[in-house]
Amino acid sequence: MIIEENDKLILITNDDGLYAAGLKTLTGIMKEFGKVVVISATESMSGMSQALTVKEPIRVKLLDEDDSYRIYACSGTPTDGVKLAINQLLGRVPDLIVSGINHGSNASASVLYSGTMAAALEGCLYGITSVGFSLNSYSPAADFSACEDYIRKVCRMLLFEPLPKGICLNVNIPALPPGEIKGIRVARQAKGNWQEEFEKRKDPMGKTYYWLTGYFKNHEPEAEDTDEWALQNGFVSVVPVTTDMTAHGYIDTLKTKF
Amino acid sequence: MIIEENDKLILITNDDGLYAAGLKTLTGIMKEFGKVVVISATESMSGMSQALTVKEPIRVKLLDEDDSYRIYACSGTPTDGVKLAINQLLGRVPDLIVSGINHGSNASASVLYSGTMAAALEGCLYGITSVGFSLNSYSPAADFSACEDYIRKVCRMLLFEPLPKGICLNVNIPALPPGEIKGIRVARQAKGNWQEEFEKRKDPMGKTYYWLTGYFKNHEPEAEDTDEWALQNGFVSVVPVTTDMTAHGYIDTLKTKF
Repeated sequence: MIIEENDKLILITNDDGLYAAGLKTLTGIMKEFGKVVVISATESMSGMSQALTVKEPIRVKLLDEDDSYRIYACSGTPTDGVKLAINQLLGRVPDLIVSGINHGSNASASVLYSGTMAAALEGCLYGITSVGFSLNSYSPAADFSACEDYIRKVCRMLLFEPLPKGICLNVNIPALPPGEIKGIRVARQAKGNWQEEFEKRKDPMGKTYYWLTGYFKNHEPEAEDTDEWALQNGFVSVVPVTTDMTAHGYIDTLKTKF
Repeated sequence: MIIEENDKLILITNDDGLYAAGLKTLTGIMKEFGKVVVISATESMSGMSQALTVKEPIRVKLLDEDDSYRIYACSGTPTDGVKLAINQLLGRVPDLIVSGINHGSNASASVLYSGTMAAALEGCLYGITSVGFSLNSYSPAADFSACEDYIRKVCRMLLFEPLPKGICLNVNIPALPPGEIKGIRVARQAKGNWQEEFEKRKDPMGKTYYWLTGYFKNHEPEAEDTDEWALQNGFVSVVPVTTDMTAHGYIDTLKTKF
């Protein structure tokens, strides 16, 4: 792959691994916009948040290449993959980092656990315009067709109007037929968390182990300006997400306590 | 351990594992305030961010117990440990979650990768007052004595004035002798990221592998209201950290683009 000066260079990653249907759909769409480099893990990295691989080395393998496309397998997390691509593989800073399409919602507090959104946040830290896409369905055979036009719309905007530094987008798409989606809602992250999170079992030796499980609880289901509300009401939610986790509004109060 | 109604119940965790000196120091201090339950990983979970263990089951083992103290080993990440303690082990909601003392700074963008701060953020999602403490030294033999009085001061405040829901504290302590620390500065997260992040090597079979490495770059070294500035200038930095990653200030601009 040769990247010309005028080419748009797009880095694609995800957290569901190389063989996920969402990655394939996203790659197909992004080829319409420029030269594409894909880096993804050989296994699922779902729920890996912005984890780094520090205790073992990272391996990367070029799997396929043509004039406008390259795909790498990476042994590390989505965040490792973005760092490795930027520092070792791409040759120049990409114009856009696109992560997903995640199998399952990353709305509300899921943004904190999501490997998909972590990849976008990592792009952000490098000052690169970045976006994560998620479909609100955990089915491996989910229908991603409704996502396509919304992804085109968001990426066309981002390629010509880059985001401010330190901000990326978290785009969640309802699992509905294309005709039933009502459009895009710019939203904020809903307040919520996961409940009753463990299933306790005994192994054949009689020892206890736990599976992480549970259900998401929206703490403000009536709030119409949230990503959860948008998603539950048939809209694509677009949340601007910041790498700055400071609770700025609480700084002055906190100063009075010390 | 029996927890009486009037006891303060404190959950302690970290990301450097059960045998870290920082965990030992923190546990010693927290015993002054109430009943203490410690849960930590058998191995280091440094750089694990808010990762969840979803592909394998989680094991937990009670290692030691007396009238006012219990310690568990957990096979999962710091976030798993907090979830497991709250849902399965504690019997009631703790009054405070304390994470650390981390071996190494979690100021600036490190908050995004930190397992220590992820544990505090997880506490936050449950509405529990939570704080992460870090010492700005990676040495396993670091001297934690200067941390003690600052930890007491912060935890005394938090036990009697809980934080607003969705906000936890990121406390970073300079690696200085006690007498040289200038006091506490409430601060915001500095803008910065990690640079030149990989060391490329060949294995004995001639195949390439990478170690994640590099150095932190502060993008705003002159800004005196940041955690990095405080830490570099001999102050303990205290940043209020939010679980809400929405870039609220950009929502109206983003609405004009769709």
